[in-house]
Amino acid sequence: MRVVYCVSDHTGVTVEAVAKSVLSQFPDFEFSRIALPFVDSVGKARDAASRIAATPDALVFSSLTDPAARAALREGGAPVLDVFEQLAPAVEAALGRAAVPGPGHTHGMAPDYEARMDAVNFSLAADDGLQPGRLAQADLVLAGVSRVGKTPTALYLALQYGLAAANYPLTPEDLARDRLPGCLIEILPRLRGLTLAPERLAAIREVRYPGSRYASPGQCRTELDAAAALFARHGVPVLDATRMSVEEIAARLRHGLK
Amino acid sequence: MRVVYCVSDHTGVTVEAVAKSVLSQFPDFEFSRIALPFVDSVGKARDAASRIAATPDALVFSSLTDPAARAALREGGAPVLDVFEQLAPAVEAALGRAAVPGPGHTHGMAPDYEARMDAVNFSLAADDGLQPGRLAQADLVLAGVSRVGKTPTALYLALQYGLAAANYPLTPEDLARDRLPGCLIEILPRLRGLTLAPERLAAIREVRYPGSRYASPGQCRTELDAAAALFARHGVPVLDATRMSVEEIAARLRHGLK
Repeated sequence: MRVVYCVSDHTGVTVEAVAKSVLSQFPDFEFSRIALPFVDSVGKARDAASRIAATPDALVFSSLTDPAARAALREGGAPVLDVFEQLAPAVEAALGRAAVPGPGHTHGMAPDYEARMDAVNFSLAADDGLQPGRLAQADLVLAGVSRVGKTPTALYLALQYGLAAANYPLTPEDLARDRLPGCLIEILPRLRGLTLAPERLAAIREVRYPGSRYASPGQCRTELDAAAALFARHGVPVLDATRMSVEEIAARLRHGLK
Repeated sequence: MRVVYCVSDHTGVTVEAVAKSVLSQFPDFEFSRIALPFVDSVGKARDAASRIAATPDALVFSSLTDPAARAALREGGAPVLDVFEQLAPAVEAALGRAAVPGPGHTHGMAPDYEARMDAVNFSLAADDGLQPGRLAQADLVLAGVSRVGKTPTALYLALQYGLAAANYPLTPEDLARDRLPGCLIEILPRLRGLTLAPERLAAIREVRYPGSRYASPGQCRTELDAAAALFARHGVPVLDATRMSVEEIAARLRHGLK
């Protein structure tokens, strides 16, 4: 088992994602990952290099923007795969202009930061249909039965994409009717259905309420079938999230369920 | 203004982050970004290539894992910067083994998926100190005055890192005492303080309750000073999040406020 260091002068979110993604192409390679974020000076890069040098066979992914810090990191001797060094020359060639290396360009609050925080606050306030009047202000409304994944998806849509995502839980009373609730019909073009395989939903509910009727496969199937019928009646696009991560659900919803 | 396409066979979160990060090194380059996720067949790669070819001067970032789809994407003629093509050879050299190209390795639910969803549900349930008994089960507890950013930070810690992050709002009653509430003292080693510059807090509160005493700079300063005194008395590490994005706050908290 080799150690993979992810070194960044900021949060390290990007370089960790790149390392995970590239290393997934090496399925037989076993590794543990150590994040070293906020390496934002030559001194800190030297400290990181010493720590890495003390680890046998370490591999380093880096997104350091300062050339001097990058050089200091290399002094540890371990192989360093730097995202900027690998990609910047190709971008320079494509754009016909030189990169301006240096930290800071992406630091601090991004221009879309306020919008994303507003979206998170909106999604929290509009969680679980607590305020049906708010649905009118939503970019997207997720509907589905209890525990189908609406809340984490809505929050991820808000945090990652700045979308004001509300959610509405279809209760057994809603499911017993032959039409969607009026508050959902009003926002129909922005409504999306979420569903899961009944066994998956039952497993999720079982953790919460072991042995309950609520968690039984039969009850889950009945609710999911009724929800599917309601969505079909109103032409609501539905996403089956059974084998999807929250990132994938959110990305598919953002791109119109394609 | 040129158009930058981000093409992925999955969610595109990684390639969008890489494009944003690399292009931040070209501060004078103005562009708009179009995401093309779920390009997971040669046919879809051809469709993407046609769309890109119809855009003058487009630039393409790609993380397609299938070599045939990658080749189809290049047929559009626009410059393609492929994360895998740029990084995989260096990783192959470092590891002494060949990459196994192909989609799927990172698809579906990551092994840490359940842990992250559990963490999100925990953080929602433990939001705003609603259930002080839950603090004992938290990996991390964020404390601070109203609107200092505790909730989005806790949710991001849960979604991104799978940390069970709770939060506790310090009320004016808490601030009037000379000790932190007992439920926080019990979990002191896992407690972290969040603070903002008074002007920043006042601006945030003003949006919510314009012209209120709650939003006045004086009131904000008084509350923040009292919170700082409480944190200092108990040796609680404090993060000033005034100029930080939620990603940065979360990454710093995860790495011990370094």
